[in-house]
Amino acid sequence: MYPRKFEDLILSFNKLPGVGRKTAERYAFTTLNWDEETINQFITSLQSLKDGIKHCKVCGNLSDEELCSFCQDSSRDRNTICVVQSPKDIAAIEAMQEYKGVYHVLNGLINIQKGVLPEELNISSLVDRVDGNIKEVIIATDPTVEGETTALYISKLLDGKTTVTRLAHGIPMGGHLDYTDSHTLLKAFEGRK
Amino acid sequence: MYPRKFEDLILSFNKLPGVGRKTAERYAFTTLNWDEETINQFITSLQSLKDGIKHCKVCGNLSDEELCSFCQDSSRDRNTICVVQSPKDIAAIEAMQEYKGVYHVLNGLINIQKGVLPEELNISSLVDRVDGNIKEVIIATDPTVEGETTALYISKLLDGKTTVTRLAHGIPMGGHLDYTDSHTLLKAFEGRK
Repeated sequence: MYPRKFEDLILSFNKLPGVGRKTAERYAFTTLNWDEETINQFITSLQSLKDGIKHCKVCGNLSDEELCSFCQDSSRDRNTICVVQSPKDIAAIEAMQEYKGVYHVLNGLINIQKGVLPEELNISSLVDRVDGNIKEVIIATDPTVEGETTALYISKLLDGKTTVTRLAHGIPMGGHLDYTDSHTLLKAFEGRK
Repeated sequence: MYPRKFEDLILSFNKLPGVGRKTAERYAFTTLNWDEETINQFITSLQSLKDGIKHCKVCGNLSDEELCSFCQDSSRDRNTICVVQSPKDIAAIEAMQEYKGVYHVLNGLINIQKGVLPEELNISSLVDRVDGNIKEVIIATDPTVEGETTALYISKLLDGKTTVTRLAHGIPMGGHLDYTDSHTLLKAFEGRK
């Protein structure tokens, strides 16, 4: 129906998560009206995916350089490590403006069904990082089956080496008791203080 | 927060219609896991936007070549022209598998508020196309204010040169009377047969 090259563009957009055929067409028609500069920016940023974006060799976070901005920042407390699933989670924690330690990005969660084993994640480098100086490792993976499995696995590995904590579960701020699922409510009861 | 190049990629996705910051991040993280071939395909198809995708010089449809596939196809009835707003609409009409004529793509609709004047649309080439051989011009613009304005403008221009028709309005197939707005119902009454 469409010219081949345009069809290719639709198919590329179609590969993005949650983007169906109609949305992909809409995106493609939008880019058709973009000026050359905007398209060039898009191409350059995609190109940089192939050779530019590295992972920090200490924590696994996305980085332009050898070390990410957190591992380079000497004002951060290097004795506290917060373990997250993805660089996206760092953004959420930084938005809180409370945590001053460093991070460790797993780049995934253990998922036996999907065949994601601990060896494929950035876990061994975490174990190497935890020496006598590390006071606390805060595991901030999602409270899902995969997140809990990964948290359990890591805390067993680090057992006796340092203090390992897990983010508290409970009723979200502004939430309602009657809309809270029983699992969350149970955690809220267990964690009462 | 993110490396500059990765941030650029998020900003590029952010420019797509209906894509907010969170979705743009999600798209960018997805492309991070794409293999090199998939990224190359994406880049090539974006590149082709800049130099590859032309408009058919007869009807204004998207085309790899001078003439689009419909204008090249000798089995189509060249004496009937269906006027549409965008190449997307051709896909919808072709899906019907009933129309055998050719098309004329306006690439927009008259919109005085937004400053889109008739001169900016592909209208004058339509008037040039309509000679004694053209039996019918079917105007298939959307039944919106802009679509109706454009339809009216074109039918006035072609008045006396050929038969100009407009797609029928009415209750959609499978629709319910009580869920039909009064405007559509009025059109359905007027168009009864």
